[in-house]
Amino acid sequence: MIHLHYWPTPNGHKVTLFLEEAALPYTLHPVNIREGDQFKPAFLKIAPNNRMPAIEDDETGLTLFESGAILLHLAEKTGRFLATDPAGRAETLQWLFWQMAGLGPMMGQAGHFRNYAPEPIPYALERYTNETLRLLKVMDKRLADRAFLAGDDYSIADMASYPWAMLGTRMLPEGTAMPNLARWVDSIAARPATARAYALAQRPEYQTGPITEDQKKALFHQNASTVR
Amino acid sequence: MIHLHYWPTPNGHKVTLFLEEAALPYTLHPVNIREGDQFKPAFLKIAPNNRMPAIEDDETGLTLFESGAILLHLAEKTGRFLATDPAGRAETLQWLFWQMAGLGPMMGQAGHFRNYAPEPIPYALERYTNETLRLLKVMDKRLADRAFLAGDDYSIADMASYPWAMLGTRMLPEGTAMPNLARWVDSIAARPATARAYALAQRPEYQTGPITEDQKKALFHQNASTVR
Repeated sequence: MIHLHYWPTPNGHKVTLFLEEAALPYTLHPVNIREGDQFKPAFLKIAPNNRMPAIEDDETGLTLFESGAILLHLAEKTGRFLATDPAGRAETLQWLFWQMAGLGPMMGQAGHFRNYAPEPIPYALERYTNETLRLLKVMDKRLADRAFLAGDDYSIADMASYPWAMLGTRMLPEGTAMPNLARWVDSIAARPATARAYALAQRPEYQTGPITEDQKKALFHQNASTVR
Repeated sequence: MIHLHYWPTPNGHKVTLFLEEAALPYTLHPVNIREGDQFKPAFLKIAPNNRMPAIEDDETGLTLFESGAILLHLAEKTGRFLATDPAGRAETLQWLFWQMAGLGPMMGQAGHFRNYAPEPIPYALERYTNETLRLLKVMDKRLADRAFLAGDDYSIADMASYPWAMLGTRMLPEGTAMPNLARWVDSIAARPATARAYALAQRPEYQTGPITEDQKKALFHQNASTVR
């Protein structure tokens, strides 16, 4: 059994996409990041960076944090969604790292300055919007002559990128066409496992109202003194 | 032979740290990011995200971009700096991804707003300084009872983190002690391979003057239209 410490954010969805595709037995443990569950001592034992997702794998006794490390672990454990030939494995891993180091963090910053910063900061908004659009265009170009990021087959690089890129396609300026990316988003959205993964977010335990000022403070004013 | 497309930045240093430790034969190919080498068609064939480092591995015929993917490839190729038992491998990979997704991008943003943004933006400066200090504190805590990030042995997680964390320790506010992190930085700095890796930056081809306004524009105003 895989225990997944989860909240339905893009990084959380990455792992449920894998678990549903592979039909692995798993139990969800909500980490309500609005209520500060990520700072609880029991969670920090698994995830010392106080971020979800994290997993405990009963079968191997391993615990893991960082969505990229979790995807790689699950792929190696099951032998699925990661090519086994050296070239295919390299293609998959480089795009997995590209998502983890580029698309995720930069879209995260764009989202922060669009939705949560206390006032609009034009320089930061432009910086992160430009970088997001650049990264999406890199994907669009990559997908011009292949079905998925690593080649013909759906892989952990796609699972890592989909939850972010899908949101990214909604912020494209009018007149900006990224047809290859749009085709890729549609093809992943149409997978039954994707529908099952995203349906989890509808469960009552994951419903929240508008974010409060206190919740913003806990989420966005972390520093060295909040590390436990 | 490994061909490393390289410029002496923190992400470039990660790979030379590995190559020097493992004493692998390699050739450096400068990617002068000040002069726009990262946009040249020949480089984009290897690195479609127009970022260095990237490698071409003659022995396997593989090319790879993203420093995390390169470190993982080199570790698996040589059987070094990555534990082979499942628990040790998991520890190493989760901290490698943590560096790639957290410490690197967030320190990159802190550096941008400290050194390159056209005017001081207090909210952004505080946001990225706080997050950098938080991440360094997570490392400091992690290193309280182990020599290296993944345990007793120097690994690719340390190589990925050192070039950034070493710079981070120089920005700690007065009175902020991170003794475990300081000890770790000192122990890696003292390794002969580290000295050899950093000495490469002194070669004449890597010397540049102060950054010009045109160079800033090319580096910091990329967007979807600059993707080739």
